[in-house]
Amino acid sequence: MKIERGLYIGRFQPYHNGHQSVLERISKQVDEIIIGIGSAQFSHDVKNPFTAGERIMMITRSLEDLPCRYYVIPIEDLQRNALWVAHVTSMAPPFTRVFSSNPLVMQLFSEKGITVESPDMYERESHSGTEIRKRMLEGSDWQKLVPPSVVDVMEEIKGVERFCRISGTD
Amino acid sequence: MKIERGLYIGRFQPYHNGHQSVLERISKQVDEIIIGIGSAQFSHDVKNPFTAGERIMMITRSLEDLPCRYYVIPIEDLQRNALWVAHVTSMAPPFTRVFSSNPLVMQLFSEKGITVESPDMYERESHSGTEIRKRMLEGSDWQKLVPPSVVDVMEEIKGVERFCRISGTD
Amino acid sequence: MKIERGLYIGRFQPYHNGHQSVLERISKQVDEIIIGIGSAQFSHDVKNPFTAGERIMMITRSLEDLPCRYYVIPIEDLQRNALWVAHVTSMAPPFTRVFSSNPLVMQLFSEKGITVESPDMYERESHSGTEIRKRMLEGSDWQKLVPPSVVDVMEEIKGVERFCRISGTD
Amino acid sequence: MKIERGLYIGRFQPYHNGHQSVLERISKQVDEIIIGIGSAQFSHDVKNPFTAGERIMMITRSLEDLPCRYYVIPIEDLQRNALWVAHVTSMAPPFTRVFSSNPLVMQLFSEKGITVESPDMYERESHSGTEIRKRMLEGSDWQKLVPPSVVDVMEEIKGVERFCRISGTD
Amino acid sequence: MKIERGLYIGRFQPYHNGHQSVLERISKQVDEIIIGIGSAQFSHDVKNPFTAGERIMMITRSLEDLPCRYYVIPIEDLQRNALWVAHVTSMAPPFTRVFSSNPLVMQLFSEKGITVESPDMYERESHSGTEIRKRMLEGSDWQKLVPPSVVDVMEEIKGVERFCRISGTD
Amino acid sequence: MKIERGLYIGRFQPYHNGHQSVLERISKQVDEIIIGIGSAQFSHDVKNPFTAGERIMMITRSLEDLPCRYYVIPIEDLQRNALWVAHVTSMAPPFTRVFSSNPLVMQLFSEKGITVESPDMYERESHSGTEIRKRMLEGSDWQKLVPPSVVDVMEEIKGVERFCRISGTD
Repeated sequence: MKIERGLYIGRFQPYHNGHQSVLERISKQVDEIIIGIGSAQFSHDVKNPFTAGERIMMITRSLEDLPCRYYVIPIEDLQRNALWVAHVTSMAPPFTRVFSSNPLVMQLFSEKGITVESPDMYERESHSGTEIRKRMLEGSDWQKLVPPSVVDVMEEIKGVERFCRISGTD
Repeated sequence: MKIERGLYIGRFQPYHNGHQSVLERISKQVDEIIIGIGSAQFSHDVKNPFTAGERIMMITRSLEDLPCRYYVIPIEDLQRNALWVAHVTSMAPPFTRVFSSNPLVMQLFSEKGITVESPDMYERESHSGTEIRKRMLEGSDWQKLVPPSVVDVMEEIKGVERFCRISGTD
Repeated sequence: MKIERGLYIGRFQPYHNGHQSVLERISKQVDEIIIGIGSAQFSHDVKNPFTAGERIMMITRSLEDLPCRYYVIPIEDLQRNALWVAHVTSMAPPFTRVFSSNPLVMQLFSEKGITVESPDMYERESHSGTEIRKRMLEGSDWQKLVPPSVVDVMEEIKGVERFCRISGTD
Repeated sequence: MKIERGLYIGRFQPYHNGHQSVLERISKQVDEIIIGIGSAQFSHDVKNPFTAGERIMMITRSLEDLPCRYYVIPIEDLQRNALWVAHVTSMAPPFTRVFSSNPLVMQLFSEKGITVESPDMYERESHSGTEIRKRMLEGSDWQKLVPPSVVDVMEEIKGVERFCRISGTD
Repeated sequence: MKIERGLYIGRFQPYHNGHQSVLERISKQVDEIIIGIGSAQFSHDVKNPFTAGERIMMITRSLEDLPCRYYVIPIEDLQRNALWVAHVTSMAPPFTRVFSSNPLVMQLFSEKGITVESPDMYERESHSGTEIRKRMLEGSDWQKLVPPSVVDVMEEIKGVERFCRISGTD
Repeated sequence: MKIERGLYIGRFQPYHNGHQSVLERISKQVDEIIIGIGSAQFSHDVKNPFTAGERIMMITRSLEDLPCRYYVIPIEDLQRNALWVAHVTSMAPPFTRVFSSNPLVMQLFSEKGITVESPDMYERESHSGTEIRKRMLEGSDWQKLVPPSVVDVMEEIKGVERFCRISGTD
């Protein structure tokens, strides 16, 4: 019996309920999930406030009850799109399905003959990293858009303070 | 008898009639032309949709009747402007003339004591990569701005579909 | 209650019984283990024949019964030793203990004020990547030095054939 | 007697009276000053027109009368914020105090347990690299915002001409 | 009618009669040849004395009478073997056949499903870059192992003097 | 009156009496000296045990009485020899003379039209980084080969302990 693995890629700045809901659905479709953390080398900037290690924490704590095995793998951004599929493939266990709604990811895999499945995103408008980071800056309610474990990690790492400071507001 | 080589640098995203017309004129002024493909490592992004290999195809197919020998050389962007002239020089056969109307290229060579000749661009307004990429997205007529071979390459590589997809429109 | 995490770093070319025995012992001393795969970007060379993805497979399949949670994280080699501890720290969840018998790893962490614990290696002579790779080339028995899952992965990826070929023997 | 060294980091594009006034004040508070030139590898672009070597010239000529020893050290930008403090630390002599009013620098050091002191900037509005570069382009008076030696260096390297040209104005 | 392109990769340090003879044979088997210059960014070291530009010169001057179109493309070494095939593919026009007798090249392409054809090398013992560089150092006859144009290029660039000097002999 | 600057490049692993004696002689021939610290990004390895910051310390403390102004500038190794002269030039103030007895440095500058002056090395056999590092490992007398300040720095940074440990001896 062959293990079927699915790949799901995101930047997870931060990990939120939209990601969680997609992963729960994917977990019913494959045997194992590979969660690739994109732009892994970036942190402490306005689009990428959190380190790869911090993002691994957010994800694994939130997925404790996921019914299938999963791998969380940092993927550094090489800034050479034509090499990206080979790069991901070399960093991850073998996979046969890819889930993404990012147009570039879809295009890059499709040029290598791999069809990308586009999962419906749960309440996409509000459930985006951009929206959550905006709320962190404004001081409005971002906590309800993320799993409780992410709120815990944010407190532990003082993530909102960091993000506000590097955004020049505070 | 010394061979006189001229260097012409561009990103060629895509190669168009403006480039073609400049190269035809240069071919009467030098013995051999070196065509440097700048930002060679980039592809699949909104400013650089096509790979270096694809750009080599567009150029060589369009220049089949050029009356002089030419070299087409990908030049990766090191993102260190102060090293760029040395980088180009190490990747190309020796050259004595440089043709460009890019202000940065002109400045970098002139600081090394090399005068850059600025060829008149044929119908510059419409004959620019930016304009052609804009037309590709809009679905308006870009084909007449490029040599017929470039239209063929675009079909072969499904270039317009790629570009529309990564631009998030389709 | 604070989670205590221990870091264990290796190149795992390939993963073998020595690593397995150390990890089983560490699993009794900490709550969670972070397994860092060093030189993650290298593969297909005589010292690093296997990709990070393949090494993740070897490790996770061998550790199915480990009594504690663990993370397997590829760590690319930046070739700047003075930045290595910061690099590992940014890629991994927070850890308070480090296990290694590599002199450089011990030195780099100790300069940052972190004491490294040196686990006894099980039958160190034969249980080394160097010895196992030597046996693969010679065709002598390497299988007994690794967990059964590693033998399976080797078959799946045709790892010995690859290694012999790139070593120029076959 | 332990030498107390203070670190002061900037891009110095170009060095101006604001920097000079801060350094004069710091020189009374520490034994030695380390002046780190950030983004050292960049030059010839609209935000970073001058090379590291040129910036070293501007700084050392302007500080001839500084009453304490100082070091001027180019710091290349690794574009990995999580490694930046380790990078600076490895490139500089040991330091115990850091002076900066850049929010990112303050955050990165504070996460490593180092408190950053924020010197008052002298007439901050006008004394900024952005303002001075703007005036260079417009042809209005930038000279009074920088030490006389910086005007000399600009003439020697034809800095304003370079900057105007690469900005596409001239 | 589809154009069949063959890829031939080497470091060409320097280009010699063995390469020439292989390329002449390949020219009868494909429509167009892509000659990839490996380790393109290296020069001035004992294994890689000549720049990519110099190697392009050696090759193109020697192939003036080749009966088919060919492309000479510098391929920088990324030092990530798992990405190498994708890298070459992005830098070159599309190809359907690969010619090489290098075990690593053969392995990397075969893992991507591309069979590599291994051309017989003409008098392999003496016709190797290593042998030729050894003779350059010793002052014995290397000229008869390379095409006459390579001797010319060596004189033009003072290649033997450079190589002897950096080898610390002279 | 034009300032004449001389460039002197070394790895300074560690700085020793041979370097000191050369610099004292050069100080009589030029107005200012630029001391470039090569391979600046490396440390904690058997050929490069000390960081750039530590090497800056060794040099500046030893040169307190030098009768001319000097600059100590870390030069990262780009591993692209053809770009090295441009790299050094961009990182340093302008210089007109170069002092070195390294064959590669001499060759690279001479190809750019700059003659390198080769200073006699004081007791070259024993006064080399290799010899001093060997003595550190053996525990024999290295201290007499370096200026007293270097002994102090070694104690402050526990340099010999570090070097022995990473060399796997101790």
